[in-house]
Amino acid sequence: MAKRLLKGAEAIGEAAIAAGCKAYFCYPITPQTEVAEYLARRMPESGGAFLQAESEIGAANMLFGAAATGARVFTTSSSPGISLMQEAISYITAAQLPVVFVNIIRSGPGLGGILPAQSDYFQATRGGGHGDYRTIVLAPATIQEAVDMTMDAFDLADKYRNPVMVVGDGLIGQMMEPVEFPENYKPRTVDSSSWRTDGARGREPHLIKTLYLDPQQCDDLNNVLAKKYETITANEQKWEDWHQDEDYEVLVVSYGTMSRICKTAIEDLAEEGLKVGLLRPISLYPFPYDAVARAAVKDHVNTVISIEMSMGQMVEDVEMAVQGKKPVKFFGRAVGIVPTPEEVATAIRDLGRS
Amino acid sequence: MAKRLLKGAEAIGEAAIAAGCKAYFCYPITPQTEVAEYLARRMPESGGAFLQAESEIGAANMLFGAAATGARVFTTSSSPGISLMQEAISYITAAQLPVVFVNIIRSGPGLGGILPAQSDYFQATRGGGHGDYRTIVLAPATIQEAVDMTMDAFDLADKYRNPVMVVGDGLIGQMMEPVEFPENYKPRTVDSSSWRTDGARGREPHLIKTLYLDPQQCDDLNNVLAKKYETITANEQKWEDWHQDEDYEVLVVSYGTMSRICKTAIEDLAEEGLKVGLLRPISLYPFPYDAVARAAVKDHVNTVISIEMSMGQMVEDVEMAVQGKKPVKFFGRAVGIVPTPEEVATAIRDLGRS
Amino acid sequence: MAKRLLKGAEAIGEAAIAAGCKAYFCYPITPQTEVAEYLARRMPESGGAFLQAESEIGAANMLFGAAATGARVFTTSSSPGISLMQEAISYITAAQLPVVFVNIIRSGPGLGGILPAQSDYFQATRGGGHGDYRTIVLAPATIQEAVDMTMDAFDLADKYRNPVMVVGDGLIGQMMEPVEFPENYKPRTVDSSSWRTDGARGREPHLIKTLYLDPQQCDDLNNVLAKKYETITANEQKWEDWHQDEDYEVLVVSYGTMSRICKTAIEDLAEEGLKVGLLRPISLYPFPYDAVARAAVKDHVNTVISIEMSMGQMVEDVEMAVQGKKPVKFFGRAVGIVPTPEEVATAIRDLGRS
Amino acid sequence: MAKRLLKGAEAIGEAAIAAGCKAYFCYPITPQTEVAEYLARRMPESGGAFLQAESEIGAANMLFGAAATGARVFTTSSSPGISLMQEAISYITAAQLPVVFVNIIRSGPGLGGILPAQSDYFQATRGGGHGDYRTIVLAPATIQEAVDMTMDAFDLADKYRNPVMVVGDGLIGQMMEPVEFPENYKPRTVDSSSWRTDGARGREPHLIKTLYLDPQQCDDLNNVLAKKYETITANEQKWEDWHQDEDYEVLVVSYGTMSRICKTAIEDLAEEGLKVGLLRPISLYPFPYDAVARAAVKDHVNTVISIEMSMGQMVEDVEMAVQGKKPVKFFGRAVGIVPTPEEVATAIRDLGRS
Repeated sequence: MAKRLLKGAEAIGEAAIAAGCKAYFCYPITPQTEVAEYLARRMPESGGAFLQAESEIGAANMLFGAAATGARVFTTSSSPGISLMQEAISYITAAQLPVVFVNIIRSGPGLGGILPAQSDYFQATRGGGHGDYRTIVLAPATIQEAVDMTMDAFDLADKYRNPVMVVGDGLIGQMMEPVEFPENYKPRTVDSSSWRTDGARGREPHLIKTLYLDPQQCDDLNNVLAKKYETITANEQKWEDWHQDEDYEVLVVSYGTMSRICKTAIEDLAEEGLKVGLLRPISLYPFPYDAVARAAVKDHVNTVISIEMSMGQMVEDVEMAVQGKKPVKFFGRAVGIVPTPEEVATAIRDLGRS
Repeated sequence: MAKRLLKGAEAIGEAAIAAGCKAYFCYPITPQTEVAEYLARRMPESGGAFLQAESEIGAANMLFGAAATGARVFTTSSSPGISLMQEAISYITAAQLPVVFVNIIRSGPGLGGILPAQSDYFQATRGGGHGDYRTIVLAPATIQEAVDMTMDAFDLADKYRNPVMVVGDGLIGQMMEPVEFPENYKPRTVDSSSWRTDGARGREPHLIKTLYLDPQQCDDLNNVLAKKYETITANEQKWEDWHQDEDYEVLVVSYGTMSRICKTAIEDLAEEGLKVGLLRPISLYPFPYDAVARAAVKDHVNTVISIEMSMGQMVEDVEMAVQGKKPVKFFGRAVGIVPTPEEVATAIRDLGRS
Repeated sequence: MAKRLLKGAEAIGEAAIAAGCKAYFCYPITPQTEVAEYLARRMPESGGAFLQAESEIGAANMLFGAAATGARVFTTSSSPGISLMQEAISYITAAQLPVVFVNIIRSGPGLGGILPAQSDYFQATRGGGHGDYRTIVLAPATIQEAVDMTMDAFDLADKYRNPVMVVGDGLIGQMMEPVEFPENYKPRTVDSSSWRTDGARGREPHLIKTLYLDPQQCDDLNNVLAKKYETITANEQKWEDWHQDEDYEVLVVSYGTMSRICKTAIEDLAEEGLKVGLLRPISLYPFPYDAVARAAVKDHVNTVISIEMSMGQMVEDVEMAVQGKKPVKFFGRAVGIVPTPEEVATAIRDLGRS
Repeated sequence: MAKRLLKGAEAIGEAAIAAGCKAYFCYPITPQTEVAEYLARRMPESGGAFLQAESEIGAANMLFGAAATGARVFTTSSSPGISLMQEAISYITAAQLPVVFVNIIRSGPGLGGILPAQSDYFQATRGGGHGDYRTIVLAPATIQEAVDMTMDAFDLADKYRNPVMVVGDGLIGQMMEPVEFPENYKPRTVDSSSWRTDGARGREPHLIKTLYLDPQQCDDLNNVLAKKYETITANEQKWEDWHQDEDYEVLVVSYGTMSRICKTAIEDLAEEGLKVGLLRPISLYPFPYDAVARAAVKDHVNTVISIEMSMGQMVEDVEMAVQGKKPVKFFGRAVGIVPTPEEVATAIRDLGRS
């Protein structure tokens, strides 16, 4: 298929439709309202439902109900909106339903600002809601990846009957880049007939619930979930190794649009003679601990730096990966001011030497 | 002062009043509705306000508004209710306001059950809301500690103009134990006249806001917050070292009511000849990394075990503390079935040897 | 078309679909939840949208938005639910949008009970919301009429760009009667292209609003509405004259299911020799003042009785019609206890003589 | 007591406090937000509670709950806000609780505008909510009357355990006039110990409810209410006869600020030689039917004119009062443009002659 020049927000919307999404529930919030605008037109055209709810809480609980029917459903929002959905995300996870969330992170906390940030890393990867649960988290660095990962997100949600979150920032939402949609795409849907609530004609009713007053049932659920997360951890780690064929002295770990800036900085540093490798986590949960460990423990590495548009969140995962074998440092800003390649290069130079 | 036999929920309510709390906003949820029942009567008697809001979202935003006046305010809730407050908590932190939250954790995710759990550890310590922020988190193991920490929570909230969360479980909420309230107690209030909104008579208005469309202002806020968390990390780590005078082979890290069960198990194991030390984090954020590291790296220690009523959450902090210097293991349940001392002893025996 | 035996609630739902209704927004409330159950299945089958909102307020405001697109839309509810919609009804009227409401009245006030009543007469005919507006109100007495009037309601709403309310009671909602749907039915839709908001491609945008801070514009709107209500009053009065060929001494005015009981009572009284005529208002707004006046002023009439399942509401309209020319009396109950024909006959006998 | 120059909104707030009001729940809406501003400061000073709720629905249901304790409570709002309260008003009436509502009417329907209007007459006098109920409605024409009637409203609410509504318009809310508060005022409170829910220590619990699934109980309630409204109708009609000592040819019926303009117009017409009498209803429910009838039927009267800032609402009550004995005409505007004395004089001259 020929490439099309699309804005990130539109590309995400179109990807959801291509993945067979049948319902989109939302509440507008900058900087991703364009997804809603786009889908207000496109969902009905494609035979799906578009609904702007009364609030993010309403939207999230509509996702809960709609997913229970076995349909592919999703929403997009931005940081404060995603915070309002935390209770529902915990419920959806407990009910083992497939729902895709896209968070175009804005700078926080509070209302903050609309400029790019990565400061919802903890919320996404540790679960901002209550209880022992996880959501699979994918972090695209380009519009093409935003398309591909949105489509993958639906497949993963189906496969594991678990929420999947795609996290980007304002750049992902607002940039235009050429994208390609796969031809003859077939979503890897999973047969939901054993659990979905689509009318119990000729069979026993399916009950979807999250209340388990019997401790043993609650225990059972938590063990099922824990096993699921083990499987996800074993199978779904994704990352990119970049520039690692060289004997890099510094390993940078960075994801999303931040990693693109790091690549420019690393190329600049290479010209100066400082060899820097990059490991880009693509799945933030499950975090690619082993890949980071492998890339970090090599003899030629003397420092590992987590570079984030947040004040030090992914660095904890990096530390857990590196297990004290190399010094782990951090460079980041939470501000909504995207660091320039020059700033990043300076930070790598300084931290790599110290 | 003479000891009084009080239920945990009542003790927490009375502690808030003793600490000078002037407003309590809530929405009822088991297993801590007794706090609301108690304060419905006691707040007015003590000259304070009691208000049951329309929802947890309402309650949390009322806390936001009331704290802006410089008054001591708090709420109590349980897991799903706390999830609903995540957006507001992020706002309150961005606005730098002192608010005390008590979370009597129930088993989750979803509606789950009302039995004890510790599965909101990530939510509490990493911030379930969006943005780079932290709440100070205190974990009492007895009703007396629940009283003392609730009172401390108000002081810490004032001192740092930051939310403080006290996390317990249904046992803390429902048990009765003798408690003592300090005589002639003086809350360590901090002068709020420089920021509170109490009518701008004769001075410039104070503006409390969280929207920073100017990136530089947003950056400034995040740097102020980051500095604050450094100070909190430096000054406010609290923990208990227990049984560590012996040459313990296994170090258990456990908090809250779970740690009480561990103590019984450790005493039983001592009779068998297995020496086990316990480090009990009292502040979960800031986590006592250095104390755990010190207790773990001793030559006689061969294993560190994080024992939790969750499926593996605090164990990440233990790993970050131990930095690969000793094997870190995990034993836990998320279920709402509190493990017995015998189960815990078996787990320690098995994991300590493996 | 052959007659089908249908429950009132289903018949109303099917009639809306036959009339080309494209969206149904609701919140369940006894005794009419069966309409929602029926349409949850039938709306999607007929290419329309079914949506259970978060509340009656949500449903009513969704009607507001959906009607603005020119689509035929409706809701059904019962007394307390209709009260919650009063603000939205005032807005919809000010915006001059066609929306059909069905109120299956339950006994009130407050939560009351689910048994039949007619006690929302004032609310329906005077407008329970604020401002100078009216809704056309139709009152079926049989399931066949419920079908016909629901279909007419859509045509009238379109014709006048004004809400139309169909009022029934639990008997209308729950009874089964044979009904016939017209063959080759063509809804009398009205071209909405001059005002609907369906995307302003190639034309000036249409603005639908109800805020008029400019007094002259607000005055203009109110004059447009007043003229509209004059036209409606002139053209849309509907009623049934029954048993009036005889020289009746008493004129009964009664509507809805109450009128069916009156007919039985009147037939019984005829056997005793008391001649009683019945005028049944079919449109409650516009009230058939002239028809009632004509039927009341005849020489052989000595008393006019308003018989209602309410405590005296329609009787005011009857008094305004009769203008003091004959004594106007009232018999009714608000209770949810439907009077028997015997009770009604006794009341007519007593009041007709007094 | 000396006269104080007060704005209407403040005067109403102060009157509520003087009447012993202990809680005010509100949601801001122009043109009466000043009442909330004033009471935000004054309620706490006077030992009462001020609470801005999440919505008018929240505020109205808080009134329901608070009134159940026997406390004097009230709210103020404006047209759309009052529409949102209709369900709660029906519940409060069914529960037989004393609550005072003040409606500073803005021009409608819909959002309309903030200029003065009287177009909520039907809503106030017929009950915009569902079921057979009535609220006592008082209509002040001056700030002094707004004070006196607000205080009376609390007494009437207590006396009849029924909502009382005071209706004004933006002029009443915004004008300043000198007002006097009674010295040594003693509210005529009524002992509520037989029904209030204040803790059932040492007695049977009081149950306040509005759900009556047993038809007989529902019937009983409606009969109790109907009897109450008969008593209110017999005892509480209030009106002013003005200029009626002359042999007026035209009788004007007008209330609130509109009546003040009528007085000026009537004085002007008197100079021309046209004798016009005025009857000003002070209680809109119960409407002073007999007083209007007495004033209208006099031989020298040839026309009765209802003059309203609405499009023809009170005129229905005037017609019911006059019973066809004289021609009843109407002059009014709903617009928010207050008619001038000259316009009114012209209307009287024209309608009086026709």
